[in-house]
Amino acid sequence: MTQGPADLAHAVRSGDRRSLARAITLVESRHAGDAARALELLRELWPHHRRQLRVGVSGPPGVGKSTLLESLGMHLLSLGQRPFVLVVDPSSQRGGGSILGDKTRMTRLSRAEGAFVRPSPSGDAGGGISPAAGDVLFLCEAAGFAPSLVETVGVGQAELAVTRVVDILIVLLEPGAGDELQGIKRGLNEWADVVAVNKAEAERATLAERTRGEFEAAFQLLRGKDAPRVSCVSARDGSGIDDLWHAVEERYATLLASGELERRRVAQRKAELGQRLALALMREFTEDPARRQALERAERDVEAGTLLAAEAVERLLRRPG
Amino acid sequence: MTQGPADLAHAVRSGDRRSLARAITLVESRHAGDAARALELLRELWPHHRRQLRVGVSGPPGVGKSTLLESLGMHLLSLGQRPFVLVVDPSSQRGGGSILGDKTRMTRLSRAEGAFVRPSPSGDAGGGISPAAGDVLFLCEAAGFAPSLVETVGVGQAELAVTRVVDILIVLLEPGAGDELQGIKRGLNEWADVVAVNKAEAERATLAERTRGEFEAAFQLLRGKDAPRVSCVSARDGSGIDDLWHAVEERYATLLASGELERRRVAQRKAELGQRLALALMREFTEDPARRQALERAERDVEAGTLLAAEAVERLLRRPG
Repeated sequence: MTQGPADLAHAVRSGDRRSLARAITLVESRHAGDAARALELLRELWPHHRRQLRVGVSGPPGVGKSTLLESLGMHLLSLGQRPFVLVVDPSSQRGGGSILGDKTRMTRLSRAEGAFVRPSPSGDAGGGISPAAGDVLFLCEAAGFAPSLVETVGVGQAELAVTRVVDILIVLLEPGAGDELQGIKRGLNEWADVVAVNKAEAERATLAERTRGEFEAAFQLLRGKDAPRVSCVSARDGSGIDDLWHAVEERYATLLASGELERRRVAQRKAELGQRLALALMREFTEDPARRQALERAERDVEAGTLLAAEAVERLLRRPG
Repeated sequence: MTQGPADLAHAVRSGDRRSLARAITLVESRHAGDAARALELLRELWPHHRRQLRVGVSGPPGVGKSTLLESLGMHLLSLGQRPFVLVVDPSSQRGGGSILGDKTRMTRLSRAEGAFVRPSPSGDAGGGISPAAGDVLFLCEAAGFAPSLVETVGVGQAELAVTRVVDILIVLLEPGAGDELQGIKRGLNEWADVVAVNKAEAERATLAERTRGEFEAAFQLLRGKDAPRVSCVSARDGSGIDDLWHAVEERYATLLASGELERRRVAQRKAELGQRLALALMREFTEDPARRQALERAERDVEAGTLLAAEAVERLLRRPG
């Protein structure tokens, strides 16, 4: 680690993969000592930055998100693009070298010179997106990779957190409906920009098409003009992938023309500032071990219903003396 | 205002309406000097508190929320209950005496001795719920009013904020579907516990029933076993109101039995603590006018995309000297 932030920034901008990997590790680091260097790195790259298209991919476990990401990534390569794929990996939650099952499953894409696949530690116990995910996307854009595809492996509200960093959300479903679909997270349907019924291989074409039609009607009913396009796709054999990407591009064009894309990005930046500031203030507050303990006790009592939240806060903030 | 918090608490517990109104005004006050008295009042009432059923009512503008609240309130009165109705009123946003259109529209319920109707200033420019809404519900429960019905008049995500204080969410729709339903907020469908197609008067019974069936099917598809019951109702002539309340009670029983009700309440308490603490820390932080200005400038620059959020926070927290 003899390379300073300025040199690292330069190497990232030149597209050097190993430097990019090092830069990502730096912004993801939770060591207090790395924060200043990470900020300096981002600061170096900032003047040159141009935000690129970022697409999230969500859906219930087992629906084939990794396979779709590989398929979509290979398709983008064939179009001459340099896709970046960020795979949120709950298993690598507690630091260290994360050897990702999902990554190794993307065998073709991981080996492709024009693509970059990266696992991301999840930010919390809920399997949500890391606070650094936005910085990671930023670094990859600086290194010339775009568009970004972000897979989520989430639980509950965590899955929605991906909308904090992406422009467009793809939701993947399976042929057949009803109870199997319990796995879809609350809220996800409402944020879907594009919906795809995966596993629509030839032998299941009829069922997949029926599911597609049913979901299209349901979305029309519940979201009217804002309803997402629903298409069939087979991530395994690649059929429908071009159509799916076309739907993403169409949606992107619509959002761009209406100003909604810029509104989303402004809202993301605003939210990021608020979150970072709140996090920093909370970190300052809990620097003192006694206060940290008091907070933990207050959390327990408030959750148990034996202490009023307003009272807890008043006590926590009361200055000694 | 010679009444101290202990006396006021006593009067609230005795069910005195004027004291309850005064107590609500106190917890809603944004004057710094009132905060300590408000907390003392809540503290006095806390040991006696038993949380009661709280129901939110959402839906697009013009769907008939106020009429439904009055109808539902009168129904609850006829069952021997003492309903409290909180109407979020964006027009009264900037303090002062709020003379509420919606309240005056609830002519029968407002005059009923056994009910309590109260407008609530909205908490922010988005028309969302006031941070004090939870305390207001708490006070009404202390005064013997239950269940609580909370109307929302929201924009965007603000409407979802009501789920921070209620147990169950009713979403109101209109007969006929598609583009008219644009008004439904993103996310709302996913949080609906009970759905009602309003304005199902005799002359529109067929259309209303068709709408009901379509929505039921759409919810089944998108939420499976967790799908809300969808019923027809006419808030105007009162038909279906008993069924609707029955659906609420059924849902309540299900949530109670599965433990989901308690999970929601624990999550609400936890979120309240986090929000209050974050708000208090931010308030401390912006007490210094220079820092407040710096924050406003940082917000502008980050939103405009000319300043990195991480950099903004680093600068804001840098201690002088």
